[in-house]
Amino acid sequence: MGKEKIILTGDRPTGRLHIGHYVGSLKRRVELQNSGLYDKTFIFIADAQALTDNIENPEKVRQNVIEVALDYMAVGLDPTKSTIFIQSQIPELCELTFYYMDLVTVSRLQRNPTVKTEIQMRNFETSIPVGFFTYPISQAADITAFKATTVPVGEDQEPMIEQTREIVRRFNHIYGDTLVEPEILLPDNAACLRLPGTDGKAKMSKSLGNCIYLSDTADEVEKKVKSMYTDPTHLKVSDPGKLEGNTVFTYLDAFCKPEHFGRYLPDYPDLNELKAHYTRGGLGDMKVKKFLAAIMQEELTPIRERRKEFEKDIPAIYEMLRKGCETARATATATLDEVRKAMKINYFDDAELIAEQVKRFGQD
Amino acid sequence: MGKEKIILTGDRPTGRLHIGHYVGSLKRRVELQNSGLYDKTFIFIADAQALTDNIENPEKVRQNVIEVALDYMAVGLDPTKSTIFIQSQIPELCELTFYYMDLVTVSRLQRNPTVKTEIQMRNFETSIPVGFFTYPISQAADITAFKATTVPVGEDQEPMIEQTREIVRRFNHIYGDTLVEPEILLPDNAACLRLPGTDGKAKMSKSLGNCIYLSDTADEVEKKVKSMYTDPTHLKVSDPGKLEGNTVFTYLDAFCKPEHFGRYLPDYPDLNELKAHYTRGGLGDMKVKKFLAAIMQEELTPIRERRKEFEKDIPAIYEMLRKGCETARATATATLDEVRKAMKINYFDDAELIAEQVKRFGQD
Repeated sequence: MGKEKIILTGDRPTGRLHIGHYVGSLKRRVELQNSGLYDKTFIFIADAQALTDNIENPEKVRQNVIEVALDYMAVGLDPTKSTIFIQSQIPELCELTFYYMDLVTVSRLQRNPTVKTEIQMRNFETSIPVGFFTYPISQAADITAFKATTVPVGEDQEPMIEQTREIVRRFNHIYGDTLVEPEILLPDNAACLRLPGTDGKAKMSKSLGNCIYLSDTADEVEKKVKSMYTDPTHLKVSDPGKLEGNTVFTYLDAFCKPEHFGRYLPDYPDLNELKAHYTRGGLGDMKVKKFLAAIMQEELTPIRERRKEFEKDIPAIYEMLRKGCETARATATATLDEVRKAMKINYFDDAELIAEQVKRFGQD
Repeated sequence: MGKEKIILTGDRPTGRLHIGHYVGSLKRRVELQNSGLYDKTFIFIADAQALTDNIENPEKVRQNVIEVALDYMAVGLDPTKSTIFIQSQIPELCELTFYYMDLVTVSRLQRNPTVKTEIQMRNFETSIPVGFFTYPISQAADITAFKATTVPVGEDQEPMIEQTREIVRRFNHIYGDTLVEPEILLPDNAACLRLPGTDGKAKMSKSLGNCIYLSDTADEVEKKVKSMYTDPTHLKVSDPGKLEGNTVFTYLDAFCKPEHFGRYLPDYPDLNELKAHYTRGGLGDMKVKKFLAAIMQEELTPIRERRKEFEKDIPAIYEMLRKGCETARATATATLDEVRKAMKINYFDDAELIAEQVKRFGQD
């Protein structure tokens, strides 16, 4: 115990996954899974967490569980290497959450900057659902149930991991060494952290219609790249163009590799030359977009094709998830047993307690 | 379903039960249990709730589970008629709590007057444990898990029951008719609602040492009654005495029946005459206290003796609790299954969902 290296990570099933998820976490997750550096990898579809701010729209969450599972399989997450499961199927997580809530104060939650930001983003103001307000505690349950040592997330999630670490320390201090303190694993390439939407807006979102989904058809990808936001002052080919805030170039920074030039744009030796030409004028948006589209198709075609294959046998995906839940549940149950034992609320399994009480009342 | 009349009630195991509990709830609870008016009675030892403000002192809670169970048996709660169980042994309650948290806003909890008062009483101010802050939601889980129709509690608990009713209505509105709205059952005798401590203070508490416990020996009861707070201006027997705030008379109001005069104080026909004499002067405290002590012994001796009997076989008490937990858990599991089905998060049991997804992806 405590020597194993264990990864935990997951996504909220509120929509199909897009290239923002891919660049920001999925691609890395597959690398970590295949790196051989970790003893176990747990990946979960956080439906219960998605319900904390979708309680009136459960059907959306329900429909997207299978979409996220398909996206996972399509990008190369492999159930023989990673345990893929659905949060709501592990009731032990609720029980851990319940007890951890006694270890955190209301004011501590109110100070959590991630929660503050998320509350603002959702315009909750005074009508924050309690389940949403307390989700850092629920995340602590998710992480500790699997004794995760390593949580690969973005910088913005640092306060969440710190909350988990505090809960672990407080629990272990009161009840003895039981839980494992996780470490955050930040992305190694900060540039890849956040892809903007195709319209240049900072956040990709379904409602803005500015996402390229992993499951988009080749035509959809083509169309979305062609209509991407570039430099609005770059009107004629001869005009000098700006790179800053130019979505096409941001995407090239994230996806373009040297070998792509030989394959799709042999006039240029590398991305720097392309950028230089664009900046000084004489390079049209459409040429750059065609190049990006070719790169995106190269990246997305195998994912799309794998997804199509998996879509042919939906019951097999549910069966994969069912097995993943079984494995995850066994692990969470073992941790919960340790937690209950440490808290000494395992009365009926505690022969010592009963003997002690027999003695106590015998002496009265 | 919904036609059965079901009682749910319980106590926090933070100490042995005292005559305040007895007069305020236990006595009535036994009457209700034996009335034949209810189809089922669930009585629980709320250890998980006690931990919400005792997380650093779990041993206190652990020790008092058996004390409360013995007190229950001693007053006549009968496991053949009532299901007596321990809250922490029913993990389904945590899962219900988890989902109900999405149905309540933070500001709604902050407005709960019972929670406000309890927070003040505990001097929590800004360091309120989240588990304590959210306990009205946990209570809603306790009540609804057993489809309780009837919750016999004091008036001060009315806001708690209203919170449960709101959760039930909101759940049923979103997910269809699933949960049962409970009714509060207020005490029929308002005078009996709250007994003061033996020192005259409004609240009985272990730390003030002003409680008469159901498990106190005859000597302890005698001593506590003899040292009771009366009227501090009633110095000489001949002085007129006040009844207001006079603990001995408050206790007589709660415990004295007409027949007690014949048995222990034949000089007086009834309580009114006794009070009149005390008020006009000429009646000493000690005489009234002796009378009260006799009445208390009459009430408490059979309870004490039954408790002594039950204390001889502690493993049998644990076994009774284990069986009660088994029964309670089966009921809670059945409710949770309905809840999960209503929320449609029972993915793997939902053949319709899988068929629907097969069709959806087949048509792509």
